[in-house]
Amino acid sequence: MRQIRTELLTQAEFAPFGDVLDATGAPDRLINQGFCGRFHDRARLDFGPEGRAGLSIFKAIPRQFPYRLEMVERHPEGSQAFVPMSADPFLVIVAPDVGGTPGTPRAFVTDGEQAINLYRGTWHGVLTPLAEPGLFAVIDRIGTTPNLEEHWFPEPYTILPG
Amino acid sequence: MRQIRTELLTQAEFAPFGDVLDATGAPDRLINQGFCGRFHDRARLDFGPEGRAGLSIFKAIPRQFPYRLEMVERHPEGSQAFVPMSADPFLVIVAPDVGGTPGTPRAFVTDGEQAINLYRGTWHGVLTPLAEPGLFAVIDRIGTTPNLEEHWFPEPYTILPG
Repeated sequence: MRQIRTELLTQAEFAPFGDVLDATGAPDRLINQGFCGRFHDRARLDFGPEGRAGLSIFKAIPRQFPYRLEMVERHPEGSQAFVPMSADPFLVIVAPDVGGTPGTPRAFVTDGEQAINLYRGTWHGVLTPLAEPGLFAVIDRIGTTPNLEEHWFPEPYTILPG
Repeated sequence: MRQIRTELLTQAEFAPFGDVLDATGAPDRLINQGFCGRFHDRARLDFGPEGRAGLSIFKAIPRQFPYRLEMVERHPEGSQAFVPMSADPFLVIVAPDVGGTPGTPRAFVTDGEQAINLYRGTWHGVLTPLAEPGLFAVIDRIGTTPNLEEHWFPEPYTILPG
């Protein structure tokens, strides 16, 4: 079975796929009499011509390594941001598009203080927390037209800690 | 000094001010082969005619009780959602509007697994985490026109645990 080792999530490595949202570096503004740093407008949100932003809550069952990756999906009509509501690392699987199908996936693990925003159309694995409670806020496109493509790999991948 | 006791945050009590976003009750959909519950489109987002959705990260210094409340603010042009990125309770202060100025504030404490969305125009206190890391994702209106009104109380309130 094909194996993939996880990498630590960084903005540089994740740049082809989406945004890493965190509070590293200097804030864009200090607000609230200096009590709060604002890292301003850090996600390339895109809900397409027919969509609008929605905020949903996802509660997912935590997974363990080795993780068996059988499919990835993408949303052609909108970006999708995942904000963890606990300070726990989670697994983020993405893949480049190669002529309309996913190429070799990459697997990232967050540092516990990162959210992500997948760009519109990015191939990605389903939400895979690594710890309870598996609770996330999701900012994605609400609309009436189809917005999901799935790709099942002919042979699954095994994801292992890097 | 005027004192206010905190209340536990519930959707029923918070309804005049905004949405409580959590994973209580049955999910609207089961997705990802049953591994994930989706509580779908739970926030009344509103970014006004000239605005768009933005996703920012706030990092705020935790506060303690008794908390001295000197001002509230509101955003006439948009809603503002606060998603905690750690499973810690935080303090949410809101006030009804009474003829253009805030009435008596109310103070809520979340249960550690709740996010909130303040409706457009709701008077509210600044972001007040009660624990480190004080990290939040904020979904609010990005635009070019003014979107902040502040009200300083002639006499501060003291917020005490309920």
